[in-house]
Amino acid sequence: MHAIGVDIGGTKIAAGVVDDEGRILASVRRETDADDVAGIDAAVADAVNELAADHEVGAVGLAAAGFVSPDRTAVNFAPNIAWREYPLAEKVGALVRADVPIVVENDANAAGWAEFRYGAGREATDMLMLTVGTGLGGAVVVGGNLVRGKWGAAAEVGHMRVVPGGHYCGCGHEGCWEQYASGSALVRDGQASVVAQPARAARLLELAGGVPGDLQGPQITEAAQGGDALAIELLANLGRWIGEGSASVAALLDPEVIVIGGGVGAAGDLLLRPARAAFAEQLSALGHRPEARIELAEHGNEAGIVGAADLARQ
Amino acid sequence: MHAIGVDIGGTKIAAGVVDDEGRILASVRRETDADDVAGIDAAVADAVNELAADHEVGAVGLAAAGFVSPDRTAVNFAPNIAWREYPLAEKVGALVRADVPIVVENDANAAGWAEFRYGAGREATDMLMLTVGTGLGGAVVVGGNLVRGKWGAAAEVGHMRVVPGGHYCGCGHEGCWEQYASGSALVRDGQASVVAQPARAARLLELAGGVPGDLQGPQITEAAQGGDALAIELLANLGRWIGEGSASVAALLDPEVIVIGGGVGAAGDLLLRPARAAFAEQLSALGHRPEARIELAEHGNEAGIVGAADLARQ
Amino acid sequence: MHAIGVDIGGTKIAAGVVDDEGRILASVRRETDADDVAGIDAAVADAVNELAADHEVGAVGLAAAGFVSPDRTAVNFAPNIAWREYPLAEKVGALVRADVPIVVENDANAAGWAEFRYGAGREATDMLMLTVGTGLGGAVVVGGNLVRGKWGAAAEVGHMRVVPGGHYCGCGHEGCWEQYASGSALVRDGQASVVAQPARAARLLELAGGVPGDLQGPQITEAAQGGDALAIELLANLGRWIGEGSASVAALLDPEVIVIGGGVGAAGDLLLRPARAAFAEQLSALGHRPEARIELAEHGNEAGIVGAADLARQ
Amino acid sequence: MHAIGVDIGGTKIAAGVVDDEGRILASVRRETDADDVAGIDAAVADAVNELAADHEVGAVGLAAAGFVSPDRTAVNFAPNIAWREYPLAEKVGALVRADVPIVVENDANAAGWAEFRYGAGREATDMLMLTVGTGLGGAVVVGGNLVRGKWGAAAEVGHMRVVPGGHYCGCGHEGCWEQYASGSALVRDGQASVVAQPARAARLLELAGGVPGDLQGPQITEAAQGGDALAIELLANLGRWIGEGSASVAALLDPEVIVIGGGVGAAGDLLLRPARAAFAEQLSALGHRPEARIELAEHGNEAGIVGAADLARQ
Repeated sequence: MHAIGVDIGGTKIAAGVVDDEGRILASVRRETDADDVAGIDAAVADAVNELAADHEVGAVGLAAAGFVSPDRTAVNFAPNIAWREYPLAEKVGALVRADVPIVVENDANAAGWAEFRYGAGREATDMLMLTVGTGLGGAVVVGGNLVRGKWGAAAEVGHMRVVPGGHYCGCGHEGCWEQYASGSALVRDGQASVVAQPARAARLLELAGGVPGDLQGPQITEAAQGGDALAIELLANLGRWIGEGSASVAALLDPEVIVIGGGVGAAGDLLLRPARAAFAEQLSALGHRPEARIELAEHGNEAGIVGAADLARQ
Repeated sequence: MHAIGVDIGGTKIAAGVVDDEGRILASVRRETDADDVAGIDAAVADAVNELAADHEVGAVGLAAAGFVSPDRTAVNFAPNIAWREYPLAEKVGALVRADVPIVVENDANAAGWAEFRYGAGREATDMLMLTVGTGLGGAVVVGGNLVRGKWGAAAEVGHMRVVPGGHYCGCGHEGCWEQYASGSALVRDGQASVVAQPARAARLLELAGGVPGDLQGPQITEAAQGGDALAIELLANLGRWIGEGSASVAALLDPEVIVIGGGVGAAGDLLLRPARAAFAEQLSALGHRPEARIELAEHGNEAGIVGAADLARQ
Repeated sequence: MHAIGVDIGGTKIAAGVVDDEGRILASVRRETDADDVAGIDAAVADAVNELAADHEVGAVGLAAAGFVSPDRTAVNFAPNIAWREYPLAEKVGALVRADVPIVVENDANAAGWAEFRYGAGREATDMLMLTVGTGLGGAVVVGGNLVRGKWGAAAEVGHMRVVPGGHYCGCGHEGCWEQYASGSALVRDGQASVVAQPARAARLLELAGGVPGDLQGPQITEAAQGGDALAIELLANLGRWIGEGSASVAALLDPEVIVIGGGVGAAGDLLLRPARAAFAEQLSALGHRPEARIELAEHGNEAGIVGAADLARQ
Repeated sequence: MHAIGVDIGGTKIAAGVVDDEGRILASVRRETDADDVAGIDAAVADAVNELAADHEVGAVGLAAAGFVSPDRTAVNFAPNIAWREYPLAEKVGALVRADVPIVVENDANAAGWAEFRYGAGREATDMLMLTVGTGLGGAVVVGGNLVRGKWGAAAEVGHMRVVPGGHYCGCGHEGCWEQYASGSALVRDGQASVVAQPARAARLLELAGGVPGDLQGPQITEAAQGGDALAIELLANLGRWIGEGSASVAALLDPEVIVIGGGVGAAGDLLLRPARAAFAEQLSALGHRPEARIELAEHGNEAGIVGAADLARQ
């Protein structure tokens, strides 16, 4: 059965028709305003109607950045869109002409599900997905099922605590994993190294145009790929935190594969090798089970569309 | 359907017939020798045969302390019994007269399942069980299903890392949760406090007969219940680590209830109150979901029998 | 012998004549511009000349916020004034009419020395001074002598590391004591608690006018003095870090008294009691020596003048 | 002036005549019994009398492992000898024929002083000595003076806390530096790595004769010198903790040189290089002062004799 997936961001939406193999057959985009929730409803419905006019679809999945109600109909809270206990499926459904079920999913869960079904996790039954971007998001699959939790708030991996008394997080707590395993952490550490170790940071400072505060993650990756020792160390440190935190999750869930998504994946082996080494070093019950694989995600930005569509038709 | 559950320990086994309400209708015990695996097979089969002679049963569940194969037939490794890749279900099955399926489960999983089905978690769909004994064991239920992991090694909660560079664990790693949230940790902290703060530890030292190394967990609980400030602090510290670690698990799994089993539960509110406070303080997404309840387990030592029996007949 | 002390800040200087009992007999102030170092020289000299016209003085001490050269003549670096390897004593000396020695001291050292000679440390030979303000500064006295270090950079107490992987510091490192034991840390923790524990933070939020980012340290003290549980906890946490870090210093230096200066002292026992308890709990060799006293500083803003004057005439 | 130094251990004493250049001109040894304090007095006096018969000496210094009274006459407490508030100088003095002053010093202080006067610190005014043996001891020199502290308990460097919630120490506290920067820590980490990473630990296990618990520090050094990656990592980790902790001390005291004594010095650059790198990475105010040198001690077991003699004649 074909299905439509819609990825709803703060300023734009992307929708696509997804076939049984996870391929996007057609897609459309719309610009939106994060404060105009009715406008978002209309734009989503419009995109769905346009796609459904040309394709026979059996379900619609909406990927939303926020806490989704356990019955998958509403967004209880979203950090970047003005949804509060908002019955999104019902609102959009009222504007969609086709008579198909509409399901809401958390966007990180949708993206993780795309990897599980059609990407780096497709041969696994138990998977941890980590999306290492500005923050650290993720998705968890156990025994072939997506873990949503009792109240739809599962897979907030970035807020597991890894350092008591550690860096503050926007969530108000200290030592969240996100503060050590994210693009923001990489940039923060890079900027700090310019202050603490100016001699070693010459190349980074140069790439940042001489302004430590302008240093960006891709510049660190570029420097590392060019052989800069400090940049390599910064990426290795990020990889180490990914691997060590994953070992804690593995103690709890014993996954078969850990999939790393997000922009930092561009660093490739400079990130993966230390991540795998740290994971192996920290894994409990080593020797009594194989080590989970740590792999890069295969899908990019379209993962939300694919995963939302597939979850809707399950 | 009635089923038999068998809890296989290092020096004794306990078996019982369990009805659909989780009640034990009849039970037997056998002494065993941890190094004599054939003798254990025979004792288990003998107990099953005895119970099956008087009761009609549809399945047999064996609860074993060790890593159980994902197909639930073998014990891959056990710390205290000489099982190595041992096909326990087949071995016992060859000696059991009744023609019923025999299933092997990890003992902590079995005990957790008993709480989920017939105890403190019976109204939940998502549960974390923590067994706070000498070590820290546990079980995880997600969406009504027991989480075993890809290789049967899930729910090793005690080996999630909570303090980088923290106390060494018998597993060879530093900072495992078990080193902060277990009866052993309580005793270790109590004994250390006698050295570091002799004036405050007078009551504890008295209960230990004047020998710091003889201090036991129940003595700390006794002192706390009698109002001793240091003992109350020690239990509060244990509770705090239970609560803080649980908040990390909740970030990942969003459970409805966290069930605390094991001997330290005797401390009651002296343990639960600080555990709940710490959990609430550390929980991410507070305000976007209800707080999981933290409750004491309702079953005692017989939980393994009940859970193994019930898992076998599922 | 009377001496003149001058406390040179970024935007103003304060100078005074100090007698042998540490009393200020006369004082003057001048406004300055942090970027105009020659102007600062002139203002300092002018203040000295004015005071010296009416008082017989034997020495002049200049307290400067920065790294002072070991020979006490120059400021090697200052964070807030444009001094770089600046021969301050010589520059000022050229403009001072009286023929007296001019000595430069770090301002925190000068303030600590005032406490040692005429304040909370006056009966001690070994003292640790902690100035808990926006940051965490200090001074160290060993065997009656101020500790300046080989290169004049001693007593940077705020940059001892207390948490590996902890909060970033402006110095580019993680986990500096200053990030846990300062007014800034108190405010940061208070603001975070409003996010993480909104229900408990109602009173703090009210005092901050409803804007978490506007919460100030004195408001936390006010709330605590009014009985607010969260505010009391925040101050206790600050006190705990002061006490625990001090215990590490005491392991190294075995001081007789630890003097707490800076604005947070206004919290009085709400800060001191947890500081003392944490110090006693963490102190090594307890029982083999008395515990150092932890006391509030007795001098306020004029400590720099008094200490600089007294150090100059030693 | 020549002086006699006596190093008093639990089971033997070593005494020597020390000249003005720190050379030992003659030496004697005696065996003793740690529980027989009168016997120790007699043995010490006997050794002193023997040496003084042939050499003109002006003072006698006794190096004792324990807390020494600030007036340098008594041992207040010793962990390995039955001294409790014991007036050692008076007791020994009553048995010594020569009429010379007798002074008691802590043994680590005496050894550190020998390095300061005649060893790796001889050109410095401010020195931190770290003796990395079974534990972590040390000595501190500030402005040319040995730091004894108010109650003679200074320089207990091993009990500065470096990891909150870290490894327990025999002193009853958690996270003491000694638990990370000592030979015992090296051995503990090595033994743990055999459990956690058996594949990488093959060489270490071989050197330990197949018994993880038999692994010794010198075997780790041997393996590292032979190129074993895990052993190199273990020593680098030890070096890192030495360097990072030293950076905290340097924030407080700004020493010119940090001298590393004790058995692990045999690892040479395998230890020093990571120690120096970590020190530079963690040092505050980098760029505003030179980096302290980190050097190996030049004296061996005789440092206590030399330092005690020299301190006695000062």
